[in-house]
Amino acid sequence: MRVLGVDPGLTRCGLGVVDSAPGRRVSLVAVGVARSAPDADPAHRLLTIGAEVERWLDEHRPDGVAVERVFAQHNVRTVMGTAQVSGVVMVAAARRGIPVALHTPSEVKAAVTGNGRAAKPQVQLMVARILGLDTVPGPADAADALALGICHLWRPSVGIAPGADGGVVTPHRAARTSAQQAWAMAEAAARRPGR
Amino acid sequence: MRVLGVDPGLTRCGLGVVDSAPGRRVSLVAVGVARSAPDADPAHRLLTIGAEVERWLDEHRPDGVAVERVFAQHNVRTVMGTAQVSGVVMVAAARRGIPVALHTPSEVKAAVTGNGRAAKPQVQLMVARILGLDTVPGPADAADALALGICHLWRPSVGIAPGADGGVVTPHRAARTSAQQAWAMAEAAARRPGR
Repeated sequence: MRVLGVDPGLTRCGLGVVDSAPGRRVSLVAVGVARSAPDADPAHRLLTIGAEVERWLDEHRPDGVAVERVFAQHNVRTVMGTAQVSGVVMVAAARRGIPVALHTPSEVKAAVTGNGRAAKPQVQLMVARILGLDTVPGPADAADALALGICHLWRPSVGIAPGADGGVVTPHRAARTSAQQAWAMAEAAARRPGR
Repeated sequence: MRVLGVDPGLTRCGLGVVDSAPGRRVSLVAVGVARSAPDADPAHRLLTIGAEVERWLDEHRPDGVAVERVFAQHNVRTVMGTAQVSGVVMVAAARRGIPVALHTPSEVKAAVTGNGRAAKPQVQLMVARILGLDTVPGPADAADALALGICHLWRPSVGIAPGADGGVVTPHRAARTSAQQAWAMAEAAARRPGR
């Protein structure tokens, strides 16, 4: 199973591709950032980011896309652009028949560190550790995208299985069901000695 | 000049096409609503709305697209979906080389009623009056889309003229420049006797 994690953003959009390996291991396939110029027209910025995401989808052909769920409560100045990017990413994936799931920042933190309120450096350190990397992939948006991908691979199996809805993951349903159990499993995996 | 106004929404996305006519008059070309099922997967909902918007763009070939500017302060429960739709619409237009402008609800209200805090029924009544219609086009999202189109046709000429940026309207710049003057002009037009 291959997942593209996307940390949506208009100035920097983090992109990370991870593969699942036997034994709940995860390996790095590609990591990077799509950028658009802050002084460009908003519609053209979205087009630039969207085109780069489509290039990643076509090059890496993931089985699923995990996008950070954006909340209105967060940074009001940038949240609308972030939400617009997430919409563009979701449509690019859906157009290719690739299931999309949304994960909250605290779900991602809980999955990779065992603590839903972990600080950014801890999340980045664990991403490097889980992927067996000597250094933390940069910039932060890229590491966050990888964390999303890892979170998605470690999520409850109900989220993976193609269902009556055509194989598309319904985040609401996944969140309602065995989410707690899933993060407990993710926590346990993240805490394994030697990782 | 032909404008597609879009009142973005995931359940109902208002669409209205208006043409400018001599003497600051505006005529109705088409009005409708793109819908997606509330119980469908979010990515597929965006895809459904996006496909319908693209159909309108290709059928009516507008010279500009006017989208309601979404604010994070508004209805938190639905604002993220609304912002995602607006992003999808902006990319669909930009991909076709059609300039996109964002207008705030109060700009739209000021343009069609002369009052930036006008109530919805007043906006809808004025939309019907300005377009020379006997009845208010429904549902409300459709009338709002037409109001956006009218607002865009009546905006400052700086927004219309293709400039150094390839003809793309930069909403921030338009908002910074002669916005006040524009709404004064719009107010005057809306108050003209016999309209």
